[in-house]
Amino acid sequence: MIRSAVILGNLGRIILIIGIAMLSCLGWSIAYYEDVTIPILQAAILTIICGLLLSRAFYKPGKINLREGFALVSLGWAIVSIFGTLPYLFSGYLPSFADALFESVSGFTTTGASVVSDVEAWPRGLLFWRSLTHWLGGMGIIVLLVAVMANLGSQAKQLFKAEGPGPITENISPRIRETARRLWIIYLLLSIACTLLLYFFGMDFFDALCHSFATMATGGFSTKNSSMAFYPSPFIQWTLILFMFIAGANFALHYFAFKKRSLLTYLRNSEFRLYTIIIVAASLLVFLRILFLNSGTGWEAGLRIAFFQIVSIVTTTGYVSVDYNQWSAFGLAIILLMMFVGGCSGSTGGGIKPGRYLIILLRIKIELKKMVHPKAILPLRFGEHLIKDDLLINVLQFFFLYILIMALGMLSLTAMGIDVLSSLSASATCLGNIGPGVNLVGPTQNFGFMPDSGKYVLSILMLIGRLEIYPILVLFLPAFWKD
Amino acid sequence: MIRSAVILGNLGRIILIIGIAMLSCLGWSIAYYEDVTIPILQAAILTIICGLLLSRAFYKPGKINLREGFALVSLGWAIVSIFGTLPYLFSGYLPSFADALFESVSGFTTTGASVVSDVEAWPRGLLFWRSLTHWLGGMGIIVLLVAVMANLGSQAKQLFKAEGPGPITENISPRIRETARRLWIIYLLLSIACTLLLYFFGMDFFDALCHSFATMATGGFSTKNSSMAFYPSPFIQWTLILFMFIAGANFALHYFAFKKRSLLTYLRNSEFRLYTIIIVAASLLVFLRILFLNSGTGWEAGLRIAFFQIVSIVTTTGYVSVDYNQWSAFGLAIILLMMFVGGCSGSTGGGIKPGRYLIILLRIKIELKKMVHPKAILPLRFGEHLIKDDLLINVLQFFFLYILIMALGMLSLTAMGIDVLSSLSASATCLGNIGPGVNLVGPTQNFGFMPDSGKYVLSILMLIGRLEIYPILVLFLPAFWKD
Repeated sequence: MIRSAVILGNLGRIILIIGIAMLSCLGWSIAYYEDVTIPILQAAILTIICGLLLSRAFYKPGKINLREGFALVSLGWAIVSIFGTLPYLFSGYLPSFADALFESVSGFTTTGASVVSDVEAWPRGLLFWRSLTHWLGGMGIIVLLVAVMANLGSQAKQLFKAEGPGPITENISPRIRETARRLWIIYLLLSIACTLLLYFFGMDFFDALCHSFATMATGGFSTKNSSMAFYPSPFIQWTLILFMFIAGANFALHYFAFKKRSLLTYLRNSEFRLYTIIIVAASLLVFLRILFLNSGTGWEAGLRIAFFQIVSIVTTTGYVSVDYNQWSAFGLAIILLMMFVGGCSGSTGGGIKPGRYLIILLRIKIELKKMVHPKAILPLRFGEHLIKDDLLINVLQFFFLYILIMALGMLSLTAMGIDVLSSLSASATCLGNIGPGVNLVGPTQNFGFMPDSGKYVLSILMLIGRLEIYPILVLFLPAFWKD
Repeated sequence: MIRSAVILGNLGRIILIIGIAMLSCLGWSIAYYEDVTIPILQAAILTIICGLLLSRAFYKPGKINLREGFALVSLGWAIVSIFGTLPYLFSGYLPSFADALFESVSGFTTTGASVVSDVEAWPRGLLFWRSLTHWLGGMGIIVLLVAVMANLGSQAKQLFKAEGPGPITENISPRIRETARRLWIIYLLLSIACTLLLYFFGMDFFDALCHSFATMATGGFSTKNSSMAFYPSPFIQWTLILFMFIAGANFALHYFAFKKRSLLTYLRNSEFRLYTIIIVAASLLVFLRILFLNSGTGWEAGLRIAFFQIVSIVTTTGYVSVDYNQWSAFGLAIILLMMFVGGCSGSTGGGIKPGRYLIILLRIKIELKKMVHPKAILPLRFGEHLIKDDLLINVLQFFFLYILIMALGMLSLTAMGIDVLSSLSASATCLGNIGPGVNLVGPTQNFGFMPDSGKYVLSILMLIGRLEIYPILVLFLPAFWKD
């Protein structure tokens, strides 16, 4: 049973928070005497009023059920993205709704794909809003708001699972609110650390803050047109590599490692190991390629280019430090394949996630063993967990749906006249919440040239990817809306 | 336990048959006074001697067990392909082993990808061998030979399943030998019918025979450089569309339809319905595209071009009637996506197969329903069959492995300097046993330009695809070879 009052009331509260968040941009626009002060204020006030009206009219404290949770997560992310367009629209910097929606969805889903060709011409108030959408989206704005601020019953865990990144989220606390609060604090502390380090290594404070938001959320919006190629400092780039890597790992692991004061916590986690192995292996391949081709590039610079770009793609951040469109077919193929890896479960990263691959690969080994010993009973274990068939099937189906949706996205874009490789990578990079693709949507390009229909298709892909497919698909099942 | 004598003895008998089949090419080369008579004779004699020595030394009538079945299927297909190179090598028409192996594997796996740029310059004796490898490979040469001619115990069904095309093969007879014999007769009768119709519509008898072999096996080798563009006759092209469509459908269905004298048999089969729907939908999309772009093309010609190319790709035949490399991105994307469909279970077609998609899609619907009603028990049914979790997992894993192997194939080819789209489509077309790809390996090109390492990689992909992955993978499991 879905009670529309519950949905509307909670949506109201979420919209309210978004409106208040918009107000924070005013600090920058006022301090720098920018002409976007009034438009941002109008956007914030309109958003706050809508939020207040909805929550006043419908909100009542009480438990929400499973189906309401799914509906709230999916509709919430969409509604938030729509209100997020207001500063872009009112300020006139993105007058087209398709553009503003793409930028807003890209922000809240922590994708980082952009339609803006000259961000450096944008006022700080607006740039701050753009980066803030990343940060708000980062840890799962809705889950956090719902879990921390609203009243959730025992089914909150299900909601957390629905939105929750990845196939398995370790229980770090039986009480969801407490869990959410702890993860939120880790996220906050890491964001502060990242900002300070970037500032210390020479970024101005505004840029450090915006890039910290984009990094910890594995988003990828930059305040510079050439993304990280603008900051050639090795210190800044290695700092970002480190924090992207952290943001792409399971936040529950960070909590445990901090609590036990032991880095071994990471090594004991098999998903983290696979995540690290994939990154190191792919980076070394790219590094060897760089050594082989450009003998002029030094060791440190070569390693940095390789690790920066691979970590950026695997964690689904999407920063760019080099124009990999110029790479050979092999380098491009590695970039394309890395788009299908994704960050760890429980991270802010999107994509398919190493944990899913691990479960599937372990099961394939069992399948082969069963071919040799048909009567053997071979349970599937993942760390300390016993994986039941239902979860395994869910994971395998996720992979199937991911590829299917990516293919349909590609087909739609080619129907608009965009070439196959650009369409394929645009679809993959948006579904994976990464940011840049190859060819026409490559690292030095943006999505501005696309027809509006293409921007809408990609916005939907970003939402589907961020919510990990099922919560969106289930909305199309008629039974979902019946009693 | 694997008894090497059983493997070697049975391999010997298979090799013997291949040698005898080679002799049949002599009829053409002698009749046309061709210079390949002696080389073909030498190849046949060498093959027959090897076969005789092995089978004399090791063959003993008796049951073979499951593991021996897997080993026999996988090794058998590889060994047969190696002996199949001898006519190409001895005649000097393909002096490089990598070329000869590629052509032979492509024949026996019914892929139809070629390294030959001017087939019309080839003697008939050799062209006949090339087409005959398709026909022999078509219905699963080893299963047929093993099942019809050797002594198989109750585990023959497992062997049939291992090689057997598709996830579910309906039992049309409890006795495997009888089953194999019936399917073989249907295959033979359809081949005769196809030959006669092509001959009747104006092909010369030799070409009609060779194209009938390639059609019924869903192979795709042509005796003309421009494939079916050489035969613009609508009658010939529609005949081929019909027979490709038949060859890509389940042969057990043909048997039942014939036995019951009812075409309704087809409509009652859900995989056949999905197969038909995909073909009709994709063809109509291509047809609309043709109408939209080339207003000069008539209705019949437009429909024929669309259906020919889509049926050719979906059934994994790989004939070409038009240079689709010249199509827009949308047309190319449809061709690329169709490469991942494949023929029905129990057909001679390769690929992922509609039956697998059907099972997966049905299960996804159940998954969504479970999100709404978590406690509901919803069994997965496929026609009259209840699909157990083990089979479902096998099917889902197959999809995963298929995509993974295709991606690794693409990565290997890009490492040899081939562009991403050509590499992707070459990998997909070989793994799917189709034939042509896009770009450099497009419909008017061939695989001759590839480096030898690329030809070996693609040969392995063709074998993996033809044997449906698992029987090849299991050979790499150490436990497979231990007791």
